[in-house]
Amino acid sequence: MQGLDNLKYDANGLIPAIIQDAQTGEVLMMAYMNKTSLEESIRTGKTHFWSRSRQKYWMKGESSGHTQDIHEIFIDCDADTILIKATQHGAACHEGFKNCFFRKLDNATGQWVTAAERLVDPEQVYGKK
Amino acid sequence: MQGLDNLKYDANGLIPAIIQDAQTGEVLMMAYMNKTSLEESIRTGKTHFWSRSRQKYWMKGESSGHTQDIHEIFIDCDADTILIKATQHGAACHEGFKNCFFRKLDNATGQWVTAAERLVDPEQVYGKK
Repeated sequence: MQGLDNLKYDANGLIPAIIQDAQTGEVLMMAYMNKTSLEESIRTGKTHFWSRSRQKYWMKGESSGHTQDIHEIFIDCDADTILIKATQHGAACHEGFKNCFFRKLDNATGQWVTAAERLVDPEQVYGKK
Repeated sequence: MQGLDNLKYDANGLIPAIIQDAQTGEVLMMAYMNKTSLEESIRTGKTHFWSRSRQKYWMKGESSGHTQDIHEIFIDCDADTILIKATQHGAACHEGFKNCFFRKLDNATGQWVTAAERLVDPEQVYGKK
């Protein structure tokens, strides 16, 4: 796809992808794609990423079943960040929250405090650690 | 602020910050902060970033007046991405669009197509290039 050649990938060939819930508008997560995982996302209609820590491709939900169905893909003005609107099945966060941004800065204490309800028990989804 | 020491900054001391419109939920932009610009954002209540291309600090809206008033700051599960909910004054994008993600992938052609209306004329805001 010609449009994918125009993106500004970083030195490791990666581009950050923000995933937004197409229904609620909430920001679910951010992860990294390369050209191959972006192509695979477009081909299958489900989000695929490159894991920097595990150095491998992964499809969101491949372990949990909590996949993301892609509605629309946007690129920003600098062509170095992707925004994907998707339907989230289950919880986006591997810690069992609907979205990964469940901790909020408490200005009074300077600490991060949990500001959301856990949707699912990670142990039930991924097994005990 | 103790919470800021717990974040995972990259090798250059940076952390990506997604800015979301607190009223509409739309994702406005993504830019990079370091600990100092994050502290300055918290202190002033307005978003401050580190420009990788210009290698300098910048406050969003310092040239255009299109500042962002911070409502809430969130951190993701891996502590390596920030989400800020803010009120956007004017246009978030330097190209004059309300948000930077104004181009959408057209699956049929594989091209990026403009999918939003320009809010302001960049030349009127920043002067002629």
